[in-house]
Amino acid sequence: MKTLKILKIGGNIIDDEAALTQFLFNFSKISGPKILVHGGGKLATKLAQQMLVEVNMIDGRRITDQDTLDIITMVYAGKINKNIVANLQANNCNSVGFSGADGNSVISEKRPIKEVDFGFVGDVIQVNTSTLELLLNNNITPIFCAITHDENGQLLNTNADTIASELAIEFTKKFKTELYYCFEINGVLENINDENSVIENINTTTYKTLIDQGIIVDGMLPKLNNCFHAISNKVTKVCIGKPDMLFKTNTVYTTIQE
Amino acid sequence: MKTLKILKIGGNIIDDEAALTQFLFNFSKISGPKILVHGGGKLATKLAQQMLVEVNMIDGRRITDQDTLDIITMVYAGKINKNIVANLQANNCNSVGFSGADGNSVISEKRPIKEVDFGFVGDVIQVNTSTLELLLNNNITPIFCAITHDENGQLLNTNADTIASELAIEFTKKFKTELYYCFEINGVLENINDENSVIENINTTTYKTLIDQGIIVDGMLPKLNNCFHAISNKVTKVCIGKPDMLFKTNTVYTTIQE
Repeated sequence: MKTLKILKIGGNIIDDEAALTQFLFNFSKISGPKILVHGGGKLATKLAQQMLVEVNMIDGRRITDQDTLDIITMVYAGKINKNIVANLQANNCNSVGFSGADGNSVISEKRPIKEVDFGFVGDVIQVNTSTLELLLNNNITPIFCAITHDENGQLLNTNADTIASELAIEFTKKFKTELYYCFEINGVLENINDENSVIENINTTTYKTLIDQGIIVDGMLPKLNNCFHAISNKVTKVCIGKPDMLFKTNTVYTTIQE
Repeated sequence: MKTLKILKIGGNIIDDEAALTQFLFNFSKISGPKILVHGGGKLATKLAQQMLVEVNMIDGRRITDQDTLDIITMVYAGKINKNIVANLQANNCNSVGFSGADGNSVISEKRPIKEVDFGFVGDVIQVNTSTLELLLNNNITPIFCAITHDENGQLLNTNADTIASELAIEFTKKFKTELYYCFEINGVLENINDENSVIENINTTTYKTLIDQGIIVDGMLPKLNNCFHAISNKVTKVCIGKPDMLFKTNTVYTTIQE
């Protein structure tokens, strides 16, 4: 089985032109099948402000009304995705931009309304790898934005970390898959104020302890839940850290273990 | 050789939700390989107004500064393209959205500055069909927006009619290609005020006469130039009219002949 590398990059890389350019240069040099999943960064919020569309966040999550969905679709699938693809082509990395609607590759369902109506937010229910596989087998790299669809014509806003983990899990049927969450810090930190306090390995048992101790909180929780979901579903390797973990030797980062 | 149908739809269909839904339903039923090329409609102008970006037109052509290029990329490749793809998936037509950067499929060069600096406008210099062909041969339909790239990481705004004709011409090496320009009228009209005055056939000779007589003017000129460029470069069939020309019998439309 060939190895498939799935990398997810977040807003901090997207928002920093020099960092993104450097990342894409390095990404283009990765040999073998690879997929990039990208989030959105601050551009969507900036555009919403310019368009006078109110940004509603509940518990750090964006409420996606129709205007917000349009903005996200324009920014993620349009501006960010196409500029990444054009940049990769300039680096001789043949790529094709994807949302979950393209190739019917990621199907989600609108999140049911409970205490909060998140609007057009989709939870992944199915991943179809056939179109992606066709491209990967022909040395073409899919570039995913965090938009999915419900198969009835409705686009939905979906968490990019989740798209990355669900793709990784489904691809275990065809590849040895490795999942890399790239962000601005070296990994999961024992002390949030100390970049050198990276916890190099976390497993299910130590994860619970770290939560109990209040070391893993806020946005790290859903990210790590995605990691453990992947590692417990046959994904070979799951890592969190700076992109350097893939491109430089002797870097420290967090590896997730069952 | 198989027949490849390339359809181009313009702003009038894009801007009319009911017309677009009907068109996509019909389009999804076309059997055999097909490609859709879409323009942008009024959405880009509307967004520019919301974002307080000035719209500059010279001789009916949009001047594309950086802000305008961002808007076009967001609207064409984001909102319009992804909603079309999601709609087609709902009609069981497996499709993937494309700009010219995706699959490195349409390469253009920034238009040289003469009397007018059109900004980030690209003239097509090369079409690569390999990624598109891979999809077509696997029953997947490429959906093209009117954005290209220069292979150096720069996206460029390119006329959708031209993208359609250049794709049609390049694909003659692999398919018997047919090119359909779909818009809101029945074809080229002898009298612009009479929907029933469709000129059913135009060839190079009658084209010159029609221009001399002032019957073909304005926006029809570049459209017809694209048509004659295609028909004189081995495209099998080039037609202009309402989408009905493809989906209904006994409709009247204009066919271009050498």
